[in-house]
Amino acid sequence: MKDLQQIHDSKAGIQNAAREALFVIKIGGNIIDDNNKLEIFLQKFSAIKAKKILIHGGGKLATQLAKDLGIEQELVDGRRITDAATLKIVTMVYAGFINKNIVAQLQANGNNAIGFTGADANFIRAHKRLSSVSKGIDYGFVGDVDEVNTVAIEPLLEQNIVIVVAPITHDGKGQLLNTNADTIAQSIATTLGSKYEVSLLYCFEKAGVLLDANDDNSVIATINPAYFTQLKEAQLIFAGMIPKLENAFAALEKGVEKVIIGKAESILDLVQAKAGTTIQKS
Amino acid sequence: MKDLQQIHDSKAGIQNAAREALFVIKIGGNIIDDNNKLEIFLQKFSAIKAKKILIHGGGKLATQLAKDLGIEQELVDGRRITDAATLKIVTMVYAGFINKNIVAQLQANGNNAIGFTGADANFIRAHKRLSSVSKGIDYGFVGDVDEVNTVAIEPLLEQNIVIVVAPITHDGKGQLLNTNADTIAQSIATTLGSKYEVSLLYCFEKAGVLLDANDDNSVIATINPAYFTQLKEAQLIFAGMIPKLENAFAALEKGVEKVIIGKAESILDLVQAKAGTTIQKS
Repeated sequence: MKDLQQIHDSKAGIQNAAREALFVIKIGGNIIDDNNKLEIFLQKFSAIKAKKILIHGGGKLATQLAKDLGIEQELVDGRRITDAATLKIVTMVYAGFINKNIVAQLQANGNNAIGFTGADANFIRAHKRLSSVSKGIDYGFVGDVDEVNTVAIEPLLEQNIVIVVAPITHDGKGQLLNTNADTIAQSIATTLGSKYEVSLLYCFEKAGVLLDANDDNSVIATINPAYFTQLKEAQLIFAGMIPKLENAFAALEKGVEKVIIGKAESILDLVQAKAGTTIQKS
Repeated sequence: MKDLQQIHDSKAGIQNAAREALFVIKIGGNIIDDNNKLEIFLQKFSAIKAKKILIHGGGKLATQLAKDLGIEQELVDGRRITDAATLKIVTMVYAGFINKNIVAQLQANGNNAIGFTGADANFIRAHKRLSSVSKGIDYGFVGDVDEVNTVAIEPLLEQNIVIVVAPITHDGKGQLLNTNADTIAQSIATTLGSKYEVSLLYCFEKAGVLLDANDDNSVIATINPAYFTQLKEAQLIFAGMIPKLENAFAALEKGVEKVIIGKAESILDLVQAKAGTTIQKS
């Protein structure tokens, strides 16, 4: 039995060694809203020598455009409702302006890149959020992911083309849907986990998961499930961080190799796990 | 000599037979501006059983958005200048709203589709229009096409994925450029002419090239260069039609098999050359 187990382990080792590294990187509003920061980030991002997928959120541009157009943002319990006018705006801003400018800048930095929404090549299929999930609130054209389909993506990754993803999905019936960028990043990472050695990076405004929310030097280098439980119980962790970490652990369970959380500015250190917080399985 | 010629003809015949059909279809504002018409067009388009590339113009949506935002459209000699604010608008409307809605509708009609601008996968490289070409007028961020690069497109076409192209290109230095959709259609068609048997279709508001501009029943079924010269000399041809036809002949010279001009509503007849005007080499 031991021999068989050793053979199995060694086979698994070979299989792991053969899997190529893939970075699935999500950036948020703090980078997207600042042209200068975005430009510097994309220069650094371009220097990462590996297969890459970049998922961008929307930032404040969509809110600003809605304001400029006099379209009122409807909020329920502090959450924005995606009505038809808002969906049009986010489709224009996320899939049009932001996505294409990122792609053009990556090209200028010598990274061949291609923009995607979930509708393109049927990449991400979603459904309009069910009222059972949203506690009866109709969030409008908001999508929850059903399936990531990588048939068209894989030959592009094989050509070392960077995939740049806007947080818009579709339902397969012609309806576009506004979808959370963190969730999209996670869905892509777990789907590609069987083929690549996937590192999932969430870039946000903090240097990592902090012990003291006001001190960027209090970054926790690694968190495993046991430590996470301790931190939660001692209420040492910022409430907004808890769902992010729960998602990270879920991604690890589903085949992602590493989840790293940190500042976009430190991207070149993050990809080497020299900065930020690494979330690990055990 | 005759035998050699016959062998040559037969070889050419075999070569032609081996090339697969590809339809490069351009639609304009009259279809894009009307949701109902666009929906019906896309249903018909989806029924075409061949490899397909769809290039869409922008329609009036961009003009309307600029108006809603209070952005003045600068015109020189009746031609719109693409300043930075206008470029942002056309990128949002063409590459975002229109492109992604077409892609989502094609998915709903059972056609796997993917949206592209010229920046995506470095598909279409252009340069800002030179003042020598524009007679000293600065048209702003308007691009003239340098090169179509189909490396990333071809595996997608091989998967029978429909390529949906928004009329935005890039200069390789990070700058997006507003580019004429007719020119993009022609550049794509001629570039792919060596690999596929390309039919280039221009859909517009008329049933074809008309002898009487007010009579949709006066469609000229076929035009060759000699007949074109006759029509021009007799001033039987609408002035706006002349550059379209000159472009069509140029495309035929560069390896496109057929150019067909007609109504988007008749797309299923156009692809069989049962409607519209066919422009032929001789």
